[in-house]
Amino acid sequence: MQIGMMGLGRMGGNMVRRLMRAGHECVVHDIDPKSVAALASEGAVGASSMEELVAKLDKPRHIWLMLPAAITGGVVEQLAALMEAGDTIIDGGNSNYRDAVDLAARLAAQQISFVDVGTSGGVHGLERGYCLMIGGPDESVRQLDSVFAALAPSLASGGDDSAPGTAARGYLHCGPSGAGHFVKMVHNGIEYGMMAAYAEGFNILKAANAGKQERSADAETSPLSEPQYYQFDIDVGQVAEVWRHGSVISSWLLDLTADALADDPALSQFGGRVSDSGEGRWTVKAAIDTGVPTPVLSSALYSRFASQGHSVYAEKLLSAMRLAFGGHFEKKG
Amino acid sequence: MQIGMMGLGRMGGNMVRRLMRAGHECVVHDIDPKSVAALASEGAVGASSMEELVAKLDKPRHIWLMLPAAITGGVVEQLAALMEAGDTIIDGGNSNYRDAVDLAARLAAQQISFVDVGTSGGVHGLERGYCLMIGGPDESVRQLDSVFAALAPSLASGGDDSAPGTAARGYLHCGPSGAGHFVKMVHNGIEYGMMAAYAEGFNILKAANAGKQERSADAETSPLSEPQYYQFDIDVGQVAEVWRHGSVISSWLLDLTADALADDPALSQFGGRVSDSGEGRWTVKAAIDTGVPTPVLSSALYSRFASQGHSVYAEKLLSAMRLAFGGHFEKKG
Amino acid sequence: MQIGMMGLGRMGGNMVRRLMRAGHECVVHDIDPKSVAALASEGAVGASSMEELVAKLDKPRHIWLMLPAAITGGVVEQLAALMEAGDTIIDGGNSNYRDAVDLAARLAAQQISFVDVGTSGGVHGLERGYCLMIGGPDESVRQLDSVFAALAPSLASGGDDSAPGTAARGYLHCGPSGAGHFVKMVHNGIEYGMMAAYAEGFNILKAANAGKQERSADAETSPLSEPQYYQFDIDVGQVAEVWRHGSVISSWLLDLTADALADDPALSQFGGRVSDSGEGRWTVKAAIDTGVPTPVLSSALYSRFASQGHSVYAEKLLSAMRLAFGGHFEKKG
Amino acid sequence: MQIGMMGLGRMGGNMVRRLMRAGHECVVHDIDPKSVAALASEGAVGASSMEELVAKLDKPRHIWLMLPAAITGGVVEQLAALMEAGDTIIDGGNSNYRDAVDLAARLAAQQISFVDVGTSGGVHGLERGYCLMIGGPDESVRQLDSVFAALAPSLASGGDDSAPGTAARGYLHCGPSGAGHFVKMVHNGIEYGMMAAYAEGFNILKAANAGKQERSADAETSPLSEPQYYQFDIDVGQVAEVWRHGSVISSWLLDLTADALADDPALSQFGGRVSDSGEGRWTVKAAIDTGVPTPVLSSALYSRFASQGHSVYAEKLLSAMRLAFGGHFEKKG
Repeated sequence: MQIGMMGLGRMGGNMVRRLMRAGHECVVHDIDPKSVAALASEGAVGASSMEELVAKLDKPRHIWLMLPAAITGGVVEQLAALMEAGDTIIDGGNSNYRDAVDLAARLAAQQISFVDVGTSGGVHGLERGYCLMIGGPDESVRQLDSVFAALAPSLASGGDDSAPGTAARGYLHCGPSGAGHFVKMVHNGIEYGMMAAYAEGFNILKAANAGKQERSADAETSPLSEPQYYQFDIDVGQVAEVWRHGSVISSWLLDLTADALADDPALSQFGGRVSDSGEGRWTVKAAIDTGVPTPVLSSALYSRFASQGHSVYAEKLLSAMRLAFGGHFEKKG
Repeated sequence: MQIGMMGLGRMGGNMVRRLMRAGHECVVHDIDPKSVAALASEGAVGASSMEELVAKLDKPRHIWLMLPAAITGGVVEQLAALMEAGDTIIDGGNSNYRDAVDLAARLAAQQISFVDVGTSGGVHGLERGYCLMIGGPDESVRQLDSVFAALAPSLASGGDDSAPGTAARGYLHCGPSGAGHFVKMVHNGIEYGMMAAYAEGFNILKAANAGKQERSADAETSPLSEPQYYQFDIDVGQVAEVWRHGSVISSWLLDLTADALADDPALSQFGGRVSDSGEGRWTVKAAIDTGVPTPVLSSALYSRFASQGHSVYAEKLLSAMRLAFGGHFEKKG
Repeated sequence: MQIGMMGLGRMGGNMVRRLMRAGHECVVHDIDPKSVAALASEGAVGASSMEELVAKLDKPRHIWLMLPAAITGGVVEQLAALMEAGDTIIDGGNSNYRDAVDLAARLAAQQISFVDVGTSGGVHGLERGYCLMIGGPDESVRQLDSVFAALAPSLASGGDDSAPGTAARGYLHCGPSGAGHFVKMVHNGIEYGMMAAYAEGFNILKAANAGKQERSADAETSPLSEPQYYQFDIDVGQVAEVWRHGSVISSWLLDLTADALADDPALSQFGGRVSDSGEGRWTVKAAIDTGVPTPVLSSALYSRFASQGHSVYAEKLLSAMRLAFGGHFEKKG
Repeated sequence: MQIGMMGLGRMGGNMVRRLMRAGHECVVHDIDPKSVAALASEGAVGASSMEELVAKLDKPRHIWLMLPAAITGGVVEQLAALMEAGDTIIDGGNSNYRDAVDLAARLAAQQISFVDVGTSGGVHGLERGYCLMIGGPDESVRQLDSVFAALAPSLASGGDDSAPGTAARGYLHCGPSGAGHFVKMVHNGIEYGMMAAYAEGFNILKAANAGKQERSADAETSPLSEPQYYQFDIDVGQVAEVWRHGSVISSWLLDLTADALADDPALSQFGGRVSDSGEGRWTVKAAIDTGVPTPVLSSALYSRFASQGHSVYAEKLLSAMRLAFGGHFEKKG
């Protein structure tokens, strides 16, 4: 079918490529004309403006946005002004699901459908396929079925042809508008937790030779009472590799981690500042609203905050208290 | 090669089967004669006592134990008394790695080698292969290479034939005695963290319809201020399935979870009491000894403790404090 | 000075009493006429309706609300419709500070001031005085100074007469509208954390005799490897008492805890369901918005959620996973 | 009565002073002769060696040690070799309670009593009195009653003369040898939790003006969606002060925090490296041994570990994973 795509960055560009490979006709627009030209040279129909994008699409139109969350809302409003009853706007970015709930309600007044699609797969999606979590009205979701099927992993890569429904083929209509981004939000919350579980574990492996190190014996250093049990020099990268094969904790994230450690065992290109991009925060806020305990997901989020330097003031206060009650001066790193 | 196996339960029995399929000769013993007879009928050589087991093995002997952690230490001592310099005892169970460090030191005086093997793969290992994390002296580990290779996943199931070393074939010599169980301990610690990440996430999905529910408006109930954002009835099982295909959080644990939810969507056979079997505890204790922050792994462990009822006294105290300062009476469930 | 008070429950009634003791004239209203009559008999001026309350106050009027958070917003709007430019509405309840920010902006259009006062001290405030955290326009806060001074602890109970500012006398103008409830929100977040710190600690003391208990030796029970170190029968109530005297962790909460344990050592009147009333949730959400790591405050909140039964679904999922990969059946409590 | 004191540092020296003020005769020893001389000039009997210390004491002897935990065990053994049946050694330091259990068992063979005393009060103990948590045999503890009474806070400072038992006077016989240090260990675990609760809360207050700050709009920065709610410039020191008066979270730690913030509002003398000295670790390990969930106490401990730089490797791994699946490059601080 014919589909418009706006936002041709890392994600959007590759999604267009995957759609064209499956025979879909893509009309594409981006604020960067070079991105449009590049995809046009690969077979897409280029559009130099939002107006042109809308004009080049047959009705009912379907325009898919892959934009930064911060500007998506504004673009949806602009676009809606150019579109008509029966058309559909799809947001495939990492937007807050609450925006989808609100936008869908506003667009409904114009009889324009809003479909939110959580998209997982990252830079590997072009070859591997994207896992799609979809929210929106039944009719629009049905119209887009062949688009979702093309973006999702093909059956050959693990799906089960005989399974009822589409989940086994990598896409799922999760509920009304907002449900797609809600499920994607939780997906990323889980992702943070899994990543932290691995990272904490590997950090312990790295410390398994602590008993070999000199430890100062001052009052500000907690002693290691049984150094004989911490004499192991573990090859962390090899452990990541072996766990990929037959262990209970094998996963795609572990595959990537093993590759990363094989390429750069010292992780020398990284300093340790870990960004977070919104979904992890929204996940925990949703958990709090609904009273769901999420100690693991929150801990993973807080470790990122701390890596960004946001715990320093609290730590200074702790040092101030220790000095005040116990006369403890800060030990120099 | 020839190998002795003692402990023919769920794990040990299947390991014998996998070894025999690969052409190894297995001499087997268990306190339950029926287990011995069953494997003998499949081609193993049965032994009705520890003495017979030792007697039936050629030197240098290799005896692999798959026993409950609580009794392993005692059996090793008994067995060592029957064995000779040059022989090797292998502990493939879920023992504390500290026991391996201690036992290896004691057996070294007799020139008996002690090899500790962390074994992951669970009830699926027979078909899928076991991921093996090995600690012990080089010479013994070398002697056992074909045994490890047979137990580990075959190359067909994902290993990379061209990779140097054995990790890509699912087994790894991690270091001296104790290193195998140390790595397996951390593996299980990570497993707890990953499991909890999924469980917390699915719990949020389940609560995504909180806005549809009546909420009492008393002072002991925290209000849900924006119910319009919690109107989703998510099919948790379908979400588990879709995440298996192309998402960043795909994993073997997720595969199993999706299957479990497909079989019993209401999880009606479970009450929610989650046991822990030692490794998760030891992991956190090792982290504390070495000063490694493990908020995620610990949170996962504590959620299990709480599920076992061990937070009730603390909760009663909180209620007592709330009554004392604020006059709050406990709300009845 | 003259002040109107609406909401004569546990908190509001006692605040009126404390104000009258200090010589202030209180005009009081409540939906329950008996509450009005009771305070009228103690010297307050009763008002049988909001209109009468407004009518009985001299301009500029000051009306203080002590109402459940859920209804405060609506009452403020109704009241504002009856009041005039120059008047002030004070919200002393446990409202979300965001409501104060929003209400203040709306009332500013009518030139009515909105002052938000976080009030701590609970049922002991009548005798002990209330700690007041105040947000709002300078002029209104200045007008109310003698009211705040009367409600706050008197100097005799610990304040420092010579200290500049009012903080040492138990009340503080923290900033513009919303700042008072913001500081109170964080106060309660800290309160949750402190309470949990004590509760967890006492729970460990209670378990210090774990080594005396029989422990089943099945695979679903983690062994206690060194029972000789867990042979203590600690008198938890006596420990709470001794810590009150000279220890680093002495506090008012500990005083109350020691009293509670002295009265009911077995805490037999409590079941362990711990409510949360909003501020703890809002604290963590504010921390997440601003990227501040709050593992302790969050953990305290989640323990309450779990005590309310909200972790059961996650726990069932964990049991389902354990069965799937390891063949572990749930142990019966 | 007469008592020997060994270890005349910050704690030991002041304890001798407090004992002498109450009329006790102190025989003192330290490896630093100047410390001995100083206290001798204040009225203590100096001893230049362990032997002399023992020789100058009447039988049954009582020798109290205030030494670094790392050397206490060795000194106890040396001292015991010089002492006789009926004598008592008291360890008032921050030793692991397990050492007390073990040492008491060993000394019992010589009929020497071992008493472990957890001592809280820090540098303020000389004036304020020390809170004492005592473990050991009844007879020895009885003999030392007047010593404990002298060290503990006097009744004037808050104790209740009429209360039965000694807890209200600031000292408590908690159980057999080890129980004193066990209770002190948990005390410190709670202390970590309380400190972190305050520190996290103040950190949120500090961030309450986040909405005033420019925030970069790149994909690696999580947006602040409602900046209007984060416009407060809170005077953190003033808030600490006001909370001291009448609030639910008033405590001695808060008193010290308010003082520290008044003296140095910017906390400019601190860098944020927070040491931990053993008890916090042992507390969590005891909780894990006994299956008690301690998310708050553990989180507080891990924040200290992270402040010491021990999370960096884990953070680098997270960055490596983010790059691998999403093409995210680390943002520079």
